[in-house]
Amino acid sequence: MTALVGIIMGSDSDLPTMRAAATMLDELGVSFEIDIVSAHRTPDKLHEYASSAEARGLRVIIAGAGGAAHLPGMAAALTVLPVIGVPIGATRLEGMDALLSIVQMPAGVPVATVAIDNATNAAILAAQMIATGDPALRERLHRYKLGLRDKVVEKSLALRSEGSP
Amino acid sequence: MTALVGIIMGSDSDLPTMRAAATMLDELGVSFEIDIVSAHRTPDKLHEYASSAEARGLRVIIAGAGGAAHLPGMAAALTVLPVIGVPIGATRLEGMDALLSIVQMPAGVPVATVAIDNATNAAILAAQMIATGDPALRERLHRYKLGLRDKVVEKSLALRSEGSP
Amino acid sequence: MTALVGIIMGSDSDLPTMRAAATMLDELGVSFEIDIVSAHRTPDKLHEYASSAEARGLRVIIAGAGGAAHLPGMAAALTVLPVIGVPIGATRLEGMDALLSIVQMPAGVPVATVAIDNATNAAILAAQMIATGDPALRERLHRYKLGLRDKVVEKSLALRSEGSP
Amino acid sequence: MTALVGIIMGSDSDLPTMRAAATMLDELGVSFEIDIVSAHRTPDKLHEYASSAEARGLRVIIAGAGGAAHLPGMAAALTVLPVIGVPIGATRLEGMDALLSIVQMPAGVPVATVAIDNATNAAILAAQMIATGDPALRERLHRYKLGLRDKVVEKSLALRSEGSP
Amino acid sequence: MTALVGIIMGSDSDLPTMRAAATMLDELGVSFEIDIVSAHRTPDKLHEYASSAEARGLRVIIAGAGGAAHLPGMAAALTVLPVIGVPIGATRLEGMDALLSIVQMPAGVPVATVAIDNATNAAILAAQMIATGDPALRERLHRYKLGLRDKVVEKSLALRSEGSP
Amino acid sequence: MTALVGIIMGSDSDLPTMRAAATMLDELGVSFEIDIVSAHRTPDKLHEYASSAEARGLRVIIAGAGGAAHLPGMAAALTVLPVIGVPIGATRLEGMDALLSIVQMPAGVPVATVAIDNATNAAILAAQMIATGDPALRERLHRYKLGLRDKVVEKSLALRSEGSP
Amino acid sequence: MTALVGIIMGSDSDLPTMRAAATMLDELGVSFEIDIVSAHRTPDKLHEYASSAEARGLRVIIAGAGGAAHLPGMAAALTVLPVIGVPIGATRLEGMDALLSIVQMPAGVPVATVAIDNATNAAILAAQMIATGDPALRERLHRYKLGLRDKVVEKSLALRSEGSP
Amino acid sequence: MTALVGIIMGSDSDLPTMRAAATMLDELGVSFEIDIVSAHRTPDKLHEYASSAEARGLRVIIAGAGGAAHLPGMAAALTVLPVIGVPIGATRLEGMDALLSIVQMPAGVPVATVAIDNATNAAILAAQMIATGDPALRERLHRYKLGLRDKVVEKSLALRSEGSP
Repeated sequence: MTALVGIIMGSDSDLPTMRAAATMLDELGVSFEIDIVSAHRTPDKLHEYASSAEARGLRVIIAGAGGAAHLPGMAAALTVLPVIGVPIGATRLEGMDALLSIVQMPAGVPVATVAIDNATNAAILAAQMIATGDPALRERLHRYKLGLRDKVVEKSLALRSEGSP
Repeated sequence: MTALVGIIMGSDSDLPTMRAAATMLDELGVSFEIDIVSAHRTPDKLHEYASSAEARGLRVIIAGAGGAAHLPGMAAALTVLPVIGVPIGATRLEGMDALLSIVQMPAGVPVATVAIDNATNAAILAAQMIATGDPALRERLHRYKLGLRDKVVEKSLALRSEGSP
Repeated sequence: MTALVGIIMGSDSDLPTMRAAATMLDELGVSFEIDIVSAHRTPDKLHEYASSAEARGLRVIIAGAGGAAHLPGMAAALTVLPVIGVPIGATRLEGMDALLSIVQMPAGVPVATVAIDNATNAAILAAQMIATGDPALRERLHRYKLGLRDKVVEKSLALRSEGSP
Repeated sequence: MTALVGIIMGSDSDLPTMRAAATMLDELGVSFEIDIVSAHRTPDKLHEYASSAEARGLRVIIAGAGGAAHLPGMAAALTVLPVIGVPIGATRLEGMDALLSIVQMPAGVPVATVAIDNATNAAILAAQMIATGDPALRERLHRYKLGLRDKVVEKSLALRSEGSP
Repeated sequence: MTALVGIIMGSDSDLPTMRAAATMLDELGVSFEIDIVSAHRTPDKLHEYASSAEARGLRVIIAGAGGAAHLPGMAAALTVLPVIGVPIGATRLEGMDALLSIVQMPAGVPVATVAIDNATNAAILAAQMIATGDPALRERLHRYKLGLRDKVVEKSLALRSEGSP
Repeated sequence: MTALVGIIMGSDSDLPTMRAAATMLDELGVSFEIDIVSAHRTPDKLHEYASSAEARGLRVIIAGAGGAAHLPGMAAALTVLPVIGVPIGATRLEGMDALLSIVQMPAGVPVATVAIDNATNAAILAAQMIATGDPALRERLHRYKLGLRDKVVEKSLALRSEGSP
Repeated sequence: MTALVGIIMGSDSDLPTMRAAATMLDELGVSFEIDIVSAHRTPDKLHEYASSAEARGLRVIIAGAGGAAHLPGMAAALTVLPVIGVPIGATRLEGMDALLSIVQMPAGVPVATVAIDNATNAAILAAQMIATGDPALRERLHRYKLGLRDKVVEKSLALRSEGSP
Repeated sequence: MTALVGIIMGSDSDLPTMRAAATMLDELGVSFEIDIVSAHRTPDKLHEYASSAEARGLRVIIAGAGGAAHLPGMAAALTVLPVIGVPIGATRLEGMDALLSIVQMPAGVPVATVAIDNATNAAILAAQMIATGDPALRERLHRYKLGLRDKVVEKSLALRSEGSP
C-alpha cells in the first residue's frame, strides 16, 4: 500500500519519541513510511524527500526534531503538503528551543506544531487532515475519540469506587 | 457555497489579527465562515459550534485566542475535524501564554498550532489540509508558493541593483 | 454528608499530586468528592459536572491539570462557584505551561490559581472560601495556622540547640 | 455598610489597575474599602491591616502588587481570610516577576492568584467566595455571567451581519 | 562572641543549602547565628527578629528562601541593616521564581541578591560588607581571594601536565 | 572629601539610569565618584580602577551594565570591596540577560545584585554596607526609612479621603 | 574586487538591521556582497547560494533572520565556510525565538551566533575570521579596537569634567 | 607544533564538556593547547593569556564557561583573535544564564556563540575560521561533512530495513 504519511526525524536518537506516531497511524489504519532525514547533515536528501513527496503519493509529512529543529520548516519550504512538526526535548532547554524554532514560521510557510514530544498527536492530526477527504477514516477517528472518553470514564469509576467497602 | 473552513475567535478584539485568515482563504479560493465564539463566556455556543461543525460541512476549524486561550483546545475536544490554533499576543506576555496553552495539548486531542498572531499561516495550513483531497486547490497552493518565491527574487534584484550607476 | 468541595483532575496520573487536597480537606473537616474529568477527553462530562455543581450542593471546585490545562478554566466558564486551579508539572516545561494556561483567564471568568503542584494550598483556600460564611471552620483554620507556626518554632529550637553540648 | 472586601495595593501607581476591582464590586453590589498598604515601606501598617481584617468584618482581601510583590503573600500570612493576589505589570518583566512572587506560595499559606493586571477578575472571585454563603449575591453572579454571554452573542451577530447587503 | 551575621531561612529543608554560609563565615572568622524564620508561617517571629537585629548587634542578615521567597524582602522592610538574599531552587521552577521574588524589590528597600543556591557567596558578601569597617577582616578576604587563585593555578598545572610522559 | 562609593557603568547610555544612584547617595550624605568604565572596551582601565579602588579609599563599588553585563563581575574579581551590580534593561530582553549575567556569579566572587534598572536601591545598599561601621549614617538610613513610610501613609490618606464630600 | 563576505537575510524587512554589517565591513576594508535569500520562500536559491559560496571566493557568510530563523543553519548545512548568524528581533518574542533557532545547532554543523540584532558584531567577527590569515586586516582590527577604547575614555573625561567649574 | 587554537575554561568541572573540543580538533588535524583560566578567580592570568595569544601564534580562542560566564567575553575584550564561546549548563538554569551572558555582547566585541554544551561545534567552527586561509584544512572539513552525511544515510538504511523479512 502506498504510504500516505511520511514520518521523518533528524536523528536516530529521536526514534523512541517518534515511533509513537507510527503506532498511532497503525491503530488508525493510515499507511506510512518512516525515515531519518537530517536538515543539517543531509540537506540534499531532505530536498529530494520533500520535493518528491507529493508525487510519490504522500499526503502529509510528520517531522520531528530537537534543538534548532529546522527539519519541519525546511520540509514545509519544499512542498505544498501539510507538514506537522514535533518539537523534541533533546537539549537542556527541554524542547522550548525546538518548539520556538518549529512554530514561529514566517507568513507563507506554516508548520502545524504539536506539543513537545507528542508524536502521538502528530499522527492523529495527520489522520484528521487526510480524513477531510476520507469518510471512512473520519469514522475511525470518531471511534478513537469514543475510546479516549471511555478510558477516562473507567478510571473515574475506579477512583470513585475506591472508598466503598 | 458551503463554508469549508470555520474561523472563530474568542473576542472581537482578536478580529484585526484573524481577518488575515479570511483574506488568505479568499485568495486561495476556499470558502469560509467567521464568527465570535468564546470558550469562557459562551461555552454552550462553542459546544454547539464544534459539535455540529462536521455535519454542517466544515472540513477545518481555525481558532484564534489570547491569554489562557482555551478556544482551540476545547473545539478540538468536541470534533474530529482538524483544528488549527492561532495564539494571539493579547496580554503582557506577548502571546507566550497563548502559545503554551494552545500547543501543549494532551495525547489524543491535537491542535495544529501556528506562530503567534500568524492567522495567514492558519489559512494556508487549512487549505493544505483540504488539498490533501482536492487537486485543484493543491494547484493553487503551488501557484501561491511560486508567488512567494517571486516576491523574494524581486526584492533581491532591487537590493542588488541599488549600488549600480 | 453532602460534599462541599469537588476535586477534579484531568487524568489519573494527576492523582498522586491531587490527593494532597483530599488529605488537607479531611484535616480541616470539610466534606468533598473526588473524580477524574477531562476537559479534552470527556467535555460532556465536564459540562455536566460543572453545570450541576451548584445544584448538587458544592460550594467550591478544585481542578488540577497539567500541560494545556483547560480543566479549571472550562469549569469556571460553566459555574458561578469559585474554581481553584492547581497547575501540575506534568510536562517537560515543569508546570510553567499549566500555570500560564490556568492563571491568564480573561476578564469575567476568574480561576483562583495556586502554586505549581500545590494541591494542599488549593484545599486550604477552598476552606477559607467556605469559612467566609462558616465561623466554626474559620476557627479550625486559626488552629491550623497556629500549628504551622508551632512546627517552625520547634524546628528552630532543634536547630539552635544543635550546637549546645 | 461594613466593607466585606478590602482592596489594598503597594503603591498609588497601582491605582489605575486596581480601580477595576472597585468598579466590579460596585457592579456586583459588594461593599468594599480601598487603601494603599506597602509590605516593604509600611510593614507595620500591613501587619495591623491584615491582623485586624477579620475582626473588622472583612471577608476577603484583594491585594495588588508589582515586582517582588510581597503584599498578597504577607497579608495571607497574617489572616485566615482568603487573599486574592493581582500581579501587576509594573516592571520591565511585564508582571512575570509579580506572578511568580504571588503564586508560588509555600504549603500552608495560599494566595488565590488571578491573571496579570486583571483586577476585575479579583473582584469577581471575591464575590464568588462570599457568595458561597450568600444566595442573593450568587444570583447577581448568574446575571453577570449571562451578561457576558449576551455581549459575545451581540458581537457575533454584528460580525456575521457585516457581509450582508 | 556576639554574632555579627544572622543567617535565617524559611524552612529546615533549606538547611543543606544554607549551611554553606555558616561554613564560609567560620572560615573567614566572622561570628554568626543561624535560625529558621518563616515569613509566611511565623510572621511575628520575623517581625521581632528583623526589628531587633540591629540592637542585638547584628551587622548583616543573610536570608535564604525558595518559591515565593518573601523572607529576605520582608526582613529588609524591617531593618536598616543590609540584607542578603539567597534564592533557593526549591520548586520545579529551579529557583527562577525565588530569584525574581528576591531581586525585584521596589525602590527604597534593596535586597543584595546572590546566585541561586549560592549561600557561600552570601557569606563572602556579608564579610565584605563588615570589612568596609574592619581592616583585619579585609586582610582575611585578601588571603581567601589568593587561595581561590591558587586552586585554579594548581588545577591548571595538573591539566597541562596530564599529557607529559 | 574622599569618595566612599565608586559608581561605574559600561556606557554613557547607562547614565540616565545610573544617575539615580548618585542622587540617592547625595541624599544620604555619602561621598561618591562616577565614571564610565567598559569591561569590554576598556579592560585595562577596569583592571586599574578595580585593583586600586581599595587603596584609593573606596568602600563600595556600584557597577551598572546591560546585555552581557560583565562589568560588575569583573570588578568583583579584582577587589575585595563589595560590588553592587545594577542590571540595566538595555536590550530587547529587557534586562533579563543582564540580571542573569550579573547575579549568577560562581562561588568565591559574589556580586550584590539589585532589581533591573534600580540604581536607587544600589545606592541605599551601598550606604547600608558602609553604615555597618558608621552609626551616623545608620541614623540617616533610619530617617530615610521613616520618610518612605510617611509618603505611603500620606497617599493612603489622600486615597481614602477621595470619596468624602 | 571579489567579495569575501556574503551578507544574506530572509526578508527585506531585515535590511535596516543588517545594513550595519555592511557599514562595519566597509569601515574595516573587507569586501562583501549583500542579498535577500529566504530559507523558506526561496530554498533553491539558498541551496545554490550556499553551495557555490566557497567556489565564488566567499570566505564567510553572515546570515540574519528572525522568528524560526532557519537561514543561518541551512546555509551552514550547505557549505564548510564559517556561517555567522544574527538573530533578529522580528516577532513579539523579541528575538528570543530567533536566538534559540540559530544557536542551538546540532553537533557537526555550527553557526557562530552573535547578539540579537547585532549585525555590527557579525561584521567584526567575519573580519576576525578572515584576519586569521591576513595580517593587514588584523592590524586594522587592532586600530578599530583602540578606537573603541578611545571613545570610552573621551566620554569618561566628559562625564568627570561635568562637575568642574 | 605551535598550537593554533587555545581552549580555555573557567573551572575543571567544565573539563568533561570541553574535552569534546580537543577531540574534534585532533580529528580535524588542528593543533591546540588546553588550560583552565578563570575570569573571576584568575583575572590576571586571563589578562596575560588573552593579551599574548596572538603573539604566541594562536589563531582562535575557544572559551567555555557556565553561570555568569564572563570568560569568553573578557577574552574577546583583550584580543583581536576570534573568540568562540561555549555556554555550559552548570547551574539550575541549564545553561540559559551562560548563553545570555556569552551571546549578548555589546557592539564592538563579538563572541561567536555555539549551542549549550556543544564544544564539538566550537572546534569545528575554529577549524572553519582557520580554513578561510588554509585550503588543506578546508578539504578535511569537506571530508568531515561527508562523513556526517554518510552516518545519517547508514542509520536511515538500518531503520528502513528493520521491517523487512
